[in-house]
Amino acid sequence: MTDSWAAFGTDLHIEPVGGGLRSGLMNALREAVRTGRLTPGTRLPSSRTLAADLGIARNTVADAYAELVAEGWLTARQGSGTRVAQRADAAGPKGRRAPSRQVRRPAHNLMPGSPDLSAFPRTEWLKASRRALTAAPDQAFGYDDPQGRIELRTVLAGYLARARGVYADPGRIVICSGFVHGLALLGKVLRRRGVREAAVESCGLDIHWNLLARAGLATPCLPVDGSGARTGELRAMRRVGAALLTPAHQFPTGVPLHPDRRAAAVDWARSSGGLVLEDDYDGEFRYDRQPVGALQGLDPERVVYLGTASKSLAPGLRLAWMVLPENLVGEVCDAKGGPEWMNGSLDQLTLAEFMASGAYDRHVRAMRLRYRRRRDQLVEALAGRAPDFRVSGIAAGLHAVLELPEGTEQSVVQAATWQGLALERLSRFRHQDAEPGRDGLVIGYGTPSESGWAGALDALCRVLP
Amino acid sequence: MTDSWAAFGTDLHIEPVGGGLRSGLMNALREAVRTGRLTPGTRLPSSRTLAADLGIARNTVADAYAELVAEGWLTARQGSGTRVAQRADAAGPKGRRAPSRQVRRPAHNLMPGSPDLSAFPRTEWLKASRRALTAAPDQAFGYDDPQGRIELRTVLAGYLARARGVYADPGRIVICSGFVHGLALLGKVLRRRGVREAAVESCGLDIHWNLLARAGLATPCLPVDGSGARTGELRAMRRVGAALLTPAHQFPTGVPLHPDRRAAAVDWARSSGGLVLEDDYDGEFRYDRQPVGALQGLDPERVVYLGTASKSLAPGLRLAWMVLPENLVGEVCDAKGGPEWMNGSLDQLTLAEFMASGAYDRHVRAMRLRYRRRRDQLVEALAGRAPDFRVSGIAAGLHAVLELPEGTEQSVVQAATWQGLALERLSRFRHQDAEPGRDGLVIGYGTPSESGWAGALDALCRVLP
Repeated sequence: MTDSWAAFGTDLHIEPVGGGLRSGLMNALREAVRTGRLTPGTRLPSSRTLAADLGIARNTVADAYAELVAEGWLTARQGSGTRVAQRADAAGPKGRRAPSRQVRRPAHNLMPGSPDLSAFPRTEWLKASRRALTAAPDQAFGYDDPQGRIELRTVLAGYLARARGVYADPGRIVICSGFVHGLALLGKVLRRRGVREAAVESCGLDIHWNLLARAGLATPCLPVDGSGARTGELRAMRRVGAALLTPAHQFPTGVPLHPDRRAAAVDWARSSGGLVLEDDYDGEFRYDRQPVGALQGLDPERVVYLGTASKSLAPGLRLAWMVLPENLVGEVCDAKGGPEWMNGSLDQLTLAEFMASGAYDRHVRAMRLRYRRRRDQLVEALAGRAPDFRVSGIAAGLHAVLELPEGTEQSVVQAATWQGLALERLSRFRHQDAEPGRDGLVIGYGTPSESGWAGALDALCRVLP
Repeated sequence: MTDSWAAFGTDLHIEPVGGGLRSGLMNALREAVRTGRLTPGTRLPSSRTLAADLGIARNTVADAYAELVAEGWLTARQGSGTRVAQRADAAGPKGRRAPSRQVRRPAHNLMPGSPDLSAFPRTEWLKASRRALTAAPDQAFGYDDPQGRIELRTVLAGYLARARGVYADPGRIVICSGFVHGLALLGKVLRRRGVREAAVESCGLDIHWNLLARAGLATPCLPVDGSGARTGELRAMRRVGAALLTPAHQFPTGVPLHPDRRAAAVDWARSSGGLVLEDDYDGEFRYDRQPVGALQGLDPERVVYLGTASKSLAPGLRLAWMVLPENLVGEVCDAKGGPEWMNGSLDQLTLAEFMASGAYDRHVRAMRLRYRRRRDQLVEALAGRAPDFRVSGIAAGLHAVLELPEGTEQSVVQAATWQGLALERLSRFRHQDAEPGRDGLVIGYGTPSESGWAGALDALCRVLP
């Protein structure tokens, strides 16, 4: 342990961020590296030691370390432990440059949540840009409708009806900067309406739960089993006014919501006056039969549909959309703000052109074939390497769940970090009130480039117990 | 008065929004039109009558009416009063379409705050898009650094140093979605640091004051005179921890901040530990001599510089930037959020290419000539039409202030509305704690297209008393 840790470690206090000790620890460590309190090369205590010092779970420390390694703040090498990274861009001779927050990339990346970025259809997108720039009225360059460009909302209404069975017209669509932006707006509106609790699934993304919490909503959880979230339990949750669900492809378990449970969710919303928030993050990607249509079609006045270009096209576009019950449109637009809170016009117009020309459909079809092939290769490789480990959630989407022998999750992720392979453990997605579950990995097979896929799959096979 | 008003008017309660009765009234009226409580064609009471009914100032009602006319919710015709507009897109036969919030455009527009949108350099922008799409690393399409793309921050650092005298390096720049986004983030950070009050100028934009208020900051005001804001008074404002200023070109009066007052602002910040927030919204456009350099250069650790593409290029891009004191970068990035709160990559990369290629400089130079010519024509036309009315704030920017005879402001704006000419009265920009000031108009001569400029100028001359 170097001096730099010794001085820092004594002072270390963690303030949970958005309810999370892990985020709090990560913030404290980032800040210490950024300000130079922890100097490059400093060796950090083992996750076991630090966890004991702080009185928190070892997994929390291990996760924080792993994420900071993935972000490039720390390095981990077998034998030499976890250290503060040497950062080329840290305070140089001028002594005033703040370290860039740019993220270092691991050698292999199987983190869930990203499509294959190397497949972004640059040429087709540029063509759509040209058409959009040519056709745009002058007003498109000005302060504009925060609900979103009518051109995009019109094309989306047609696409969502056709491809996802959504009851959509342009008047009930609101464009937003990614799913999180939409969810943040909905949280604000729900809170203003007096809702105090929003049910979430017992496994999912803590950034979503934290967003709702920041809007002032408690987030009790619905158990998830092999048929999806047990929506029948909503009736007994008297204070719950909304339920955030992933009906097409539960995240991360990958099961579709059973038809009876879909009906139960809508029945609950109707009888209680509640709202279902349908997170349709990867609904386009289903491999073995037709996609499961959106829940929203069952009752457009009780279900908010949320879709995004982040999985179908690219997260870097920051474009997503909500299809709202009619009586929610005004409130959501008010929560979004005035014209100065509009989304950038050019990307909206380009996406509208991209969809209208058929390029979006073609891209989704091509990517569906690519991801399906990878899924088949993953299943095959795992069957050869670890035939006893069950793979699930593979009928759709860009990720699969691999069950691991009890007690091995942490060590597999650690081994992966040492190999430069980024992946996510299943327990990372468990709600704090959820029953303990199986050990496992969530494998984002959509994430690597085509050229990186084989290497990532090999690396995965190497780190399995 | 039709039945539709009679029923609604009785129920009308106004809740001030962001401290404003005008916004509250506008929201209530929009909502009533949106939901059909006020039907198309319904005649509204006169502003005098409604003001008396509600016990609020007549100007507040008149302003709300004028803005709703400009937005297309209401119509105003001399002789037939103010009525709810016939909206082509209101609930049609399907009966479920929410009315679009798209804004109707007045025939002539001299509202301040917008550049000439018809001048957006579409061809050059497309060229920059092509280069950006070709050169972008795959990671640019993924979840990325919320601080902003390094390519754009690097180009901006060079440009701001050269064109605006800003002490900038990429590590202290944070990209945001327009000035309001930057200000909202700064408000959050200031509040987290324990600041309770941020001084603002006694005339300015209420949306900025409201943003700070929503972050939990009181906004006492600094008087503005012919030398800009009286920054010497900051010393006596003991609870103030930040001051929002427009040093290059006070908005809306148009005066530059006097050198002594620039020094006083920085001295105050140094001695009190406060921060100056420098809103450099149109610093590129100065006509009679070199632009006034940014205040930030005087003390980069005590001044936050905020710049934007909204005036120099187009508000529809929603791109702005902050240059921060080094010790603020981490907190502002944390307030912005994780990678999912990044700005869209493609517009950032395109702007970087656009600036690096020199196209940005060329565009600013061409627009400077155009706006200067319009300014000269405005001054000449007003000298002919109303030689006794003083025009001020004309050395820079995209707007001028025309002083009006005492007591005529309201009737001129009303007459303009009837003529289909949108313009803004000076008193609209007065802080609630400010001394009463002169009657006047704020004329946004940058707003019309080249083809619309002559007609807008004629319309203005027609409505003057």
